[in-house]
Amino acid sequence: MDVMTAIRTRRSIRSYQDRPIEEEKLDAVLEAGRLAPSASNRQEWRFVVVKDEATRQRLARAANNQNFVGEAPVIIVACAVETSHVMSCGQLSYPIDLAIAVDHMTLKAVEEGLGTCWIGAFKEGEVKEILGIPDQVRVVALLPIGYPEYVPSPTRRKSRDEVFMFERWR
Amino acid sequence: MDVMTAIRTRRSIRSYQDRPIEEEKLDAVLEAGRLAPSASNRQEWRFVVVKDEATRQRLARAANNQNFVGEAPVIIVACAVETSHVMSCGQLSYPIDLAIAVDHMTLKAVEEGLGTCWIGAFKEGEVKEILGIPDQVRVVALLPIGYPEYVPSPTRRKSRDEVFMFERWR
Repeated sequence: MDVMTAIRTRRSIRSYQDRPIEEEKLDAVLEAGRLAPSASNRQEWRFVVVKDEATRQRLARAANNQNFVGEAPVIIVACAVETSHVMSCGQLSYPIDLAIAVDHMTLKAVEEGLGTCWIGAFKEGEVKEILGIPDQVRVVALLPIGYPEYVPSPTRRKSRDEVFMFERWR
Repeated sequence: MDVMTAIRTRRSIRSYQDRPIEEEKLDAVLEAGRLAPSASNRQEWRFVVVKDEATRQRLARAANNQNFVGEAPVIIVACAVETSHVMSCGQLSYPIDLAIAVDHMTLKAVEEGLGTCWIGAFKEGEVKEILGIPDQVRVVALLPIGYPEYVPSPTRRKSRDEVFMFERWR
């Protein structure tokens, strides 16, 4: 699947089939994240890959009771292990680096016929307790992944005129 | 080009040909960013697309004198216009959302035969002054884009064992 098709057809999937993900497909999605670029190649990411159903149900409850999170056969929990590095532009590296890796995973998932949904609504402390994640580690996103049960229509995007400026701010 | 090929062959390009980017290719790269997902579909991103050579040279100086930044025929300046929204996991939305959009652009650029380099080393205040960007806006990344003059070898990534954990933190 070409890159633009993956970008155009990606949706936030909030309903999953009761169907496992083939190991080779899951491996390919993880690999897409592993290969992502990061600030000074820091790779301060770690990913906990959860398949256990009881654990997924607990994560769904920690994700503000978004039940579909637990319906997905796999949840990828995206963590940052070094969280203090600030780039000279003033931005912390880790949220940006984690987002790049997770974005790679979401697009590779589309290529594999799988769906995902970025989850930022969760209680970090509860997720860390469920998975035994150390205090100093930050959990940046949950990514349920599975075969979509329902693929929603695209959501609205701002127009090109609203988003792009040429040569200077206007 | 399939998604995994784009991911595998993307490099941080630090040397660009003196060759303009076709408008339709640049449009496609921008579109890839415009279509990106964001927290609650906030789309708090704006992008300043700089082609003017004198402005590019000034941006290169603001980017800690990384001359290759100014050699690229286009620099995309990724900005966040609303920077206070915090997701319930505790993370600010905007660095993650901007990173998703810029990552989409980097992968679409590869599909178009173009190269990019994430730049986080820059003086934000200088960049804002050069482009007339308002005080409350944050500049999250500069993305020079152009035809690669030199494509480096892949940089080392941590092994799968170092990056992935299954079911629980270990």
